[in-house]
Amino acid sequence: MGTVVSIQQKPDRDSGIERLVGLVADDMKRVNEMILSRTGSDVTLIPEVAAHLIESGGKRLRPMLTIAAAQMFGYGGDGHIRLAASVEFMHTATLLHDDVVDESDMRRGKAAARMVWGNEASVLVGDFLLGQAFKMMVEVRSLDALEVLSDAAAVIAEGEVMQLVTAQNTATTEDEYLAVIRAKTAALFSAAGEVGAIVADRSAAERGALRSYGTNLGLAFQLVDDALDYSGAQAKLGKNVGDDFREGKVTLPVLLAYRRGDEEQRDFWRRSLTERQTDDSDLDRAIALMAEHRALEDTIARARHYGAMARDALEIFPASDHRTALNDVVDFCVNREF
Amino acid sequence: MGTVVSIQQKPDRDSGIERLVGLVADDMKRVNEMILSRTGSDVTLIPEVAAHLIESGGKRLRPMLTIAAAQMFGYGGDGHIRLAASVEFMHTATLLHDDVVDESDMRRGKAAARMVWGNEASVLVGDFLLGQAFKMMVEVRSLDALEVLSDAAAVIAEGEVMQLVTAQNTATTEDEYLAVIRAKTAALFSAAGEVGAIVADRSAAERGALRSYGTNLGLAFQLVDDALDYSGAQAKLGKNVGDDFREGKVTLPVLLAYRRGDEEQRDFWRRSLTERQTDDSDLDRAIALMAEHRALEDTIARARHYGAMARDALEIFPASDHRTALNDVVDFCVNREF
Repeated sequence: MGTVVSIQQKPDRDSGIERLVGLVADDMKRVNEMILSRTGSDVTLIPEVAAHLIESGGKRLRPMLTIAAAQMFGYGGDGHIRLAASVEFMHTATLLHDDVVDESDMRRGKAAARMVWGNEASVLVGDFLLGQAFKMMVEVRSLDALEVLSDAAAVIAEGEVMQLVTAQNTATTEDEYLAVIRAKTAALFSAAGEVGAIVADRSAAERGALRSYGTNLGLAFQLVDDALDYSGAQAKLGKNVGDDFREGKVTLPVLLAYRRGDEEQRDFWRRSLTERQTDDSDLDRAIALMAEHRALEDTIARARHYGAMARDALEIFPASDHRTALNDVVDFCVNREF
Repeated sequence: MGTVVSIQQKPDRDSGIERLVGLVADDMKRVNEMILSRTGSDVTLIPEVAAHLIESGGKRLRPMLTIAAAQMFGYGGDGHIRLAASVEFMHTATLLHDDVVDESDMRRGKAAARMVWGNEASVLVGDFLLGQAFKMMVEVRSLDALEVLSDAAAVIAEGEVMQLVTAQNTATTEDEYLAVIRAKTAALFSAAGEVGAIVADRSAAERGALRSYGTNLGLAFQLVDDALDYSGAQAKLGKNVGDDFREGKVTLPVLLAYRRGDEEQRDFWRRSLTERQTDDSDLDRAIALMAEHRALEDTIARARHYGAMARDALEIFPASDHRTALNDVVDFCVNREF
């Protein structure tokens, strides 16, 4: 089952996703064409809103996982194109609805769609993209792929509601937080990988390996994302530093700083997150407390743990460019810039 | 192909849906159990919000169509239960999102979910129900049913966006209005009927007949609904009379009164709907103008036309209790109380 990668391992700061991007480039061109053709509508508001988000330079990490997995198995059909586009539509629909729920102003470095076209358009265009995602999945005519992706859709929504409930609650445990990100983020990474194996008609063990890879990669990705919200350079982040703080989101960096802090510090966190009474200096204090308690470093250490599990899941497959590329993605996610 | 029912025909004011309710009662009990079990979640907010809407006494007209169609064909399996529950979940998800988009205060005679739990919960629980709907459909393992229902999901969302665009625009044509209600309302009635034929493995002609019945019934239903918004008794309507007016929705009664009015009246409509500057007396004036131009009567006359088409679509089937019950639904929809 391969070597266990230690969580203390020094990450390779140069690793990127160039290898993956190169391997999937031709197929991703087809995915992008599919995406554009499926956002077409006589109702011009739909392609407008969709293009705002879809063409705003997201990395398309999730559909690339589907393509890379299918290619790794030598899949020769074209079902993976539609499945990958479905995965990206599910993701985009979630972003549109998230922005409404979070009342976000920015997304990927641009004004959030809801700031330009209103909450109404964000809700309804999200629904449209979800409907199109299901249409494309059905066209592939794989009931197993449909099962995995429709499960993911229900789990993602459940995770979003869970997050709504845990938000602003500093008593959230690390396990509860993990359950939220497992549902709202890791479920789609997991499904994206698994359907690549399904469309290539692989064994249950191989499907399971891709599922496990995706789940753990997704957990690592979200943990790093939550750390970046307190430390990222705004331009690279494409959103405002401190958004989570201002929205009262209780993420792992907060949980660690809260638990490790004294009563006066806990009062600060409760007041800031629960009662949402924050001013400009509060974010500075939050970041200082995280530094004091090594909350960001340890969040990243947790991310490395899941990254190691993701890498090990792939060890059942023979070495190949695609396996290496999928491993690179783990490094990329864990080492994203602060 | 049966007799053409004249649109001048005097409707039978006593007809109701008792026959239908009786025929589908046993299966609808199973549908309701399925609905309850599928709104279950450890995240208690989900069953709370879902129950608020699902148990608030909607008629469950759409899932009854699926059950009645499957029964009419002597279907002996249990796929129709899941498909009917899926149809109801799709409908409920749409209601939750609609209330956010319309900023509605009431729904089915109760406070709208968004007034109790906030817009966030309405958006996310709607997404959860949509995800569960797709999961249930996939479990039936009929790709044809999946195709029909996923098409409907995309069309419904497209119709909602269309409505957002045409809202407040008094220059909307009757055809454009029909395109909106065909998508946002009739598509689900149509799919609900057709999947009843699909699960019973019927011919393309029989599927087409149910599809046509559902489409035209849905158009009639929505036209009457739009008329009721200006004339219904508030208690029976379960929402506020004049909601459409206050939201600036350009429905057929408005279109007819606008077109038939003089320039001063058109100014009134433009000011009221486009600029949303309405006070209490404006609704009274709107209702008076509709009376002057027979806008409500003629909206109902249009509804009767589609009702007649719905009835004729069923004429290819041999006479049966189920066919009679489905015809009763048409009468019920067209003759709902003012």
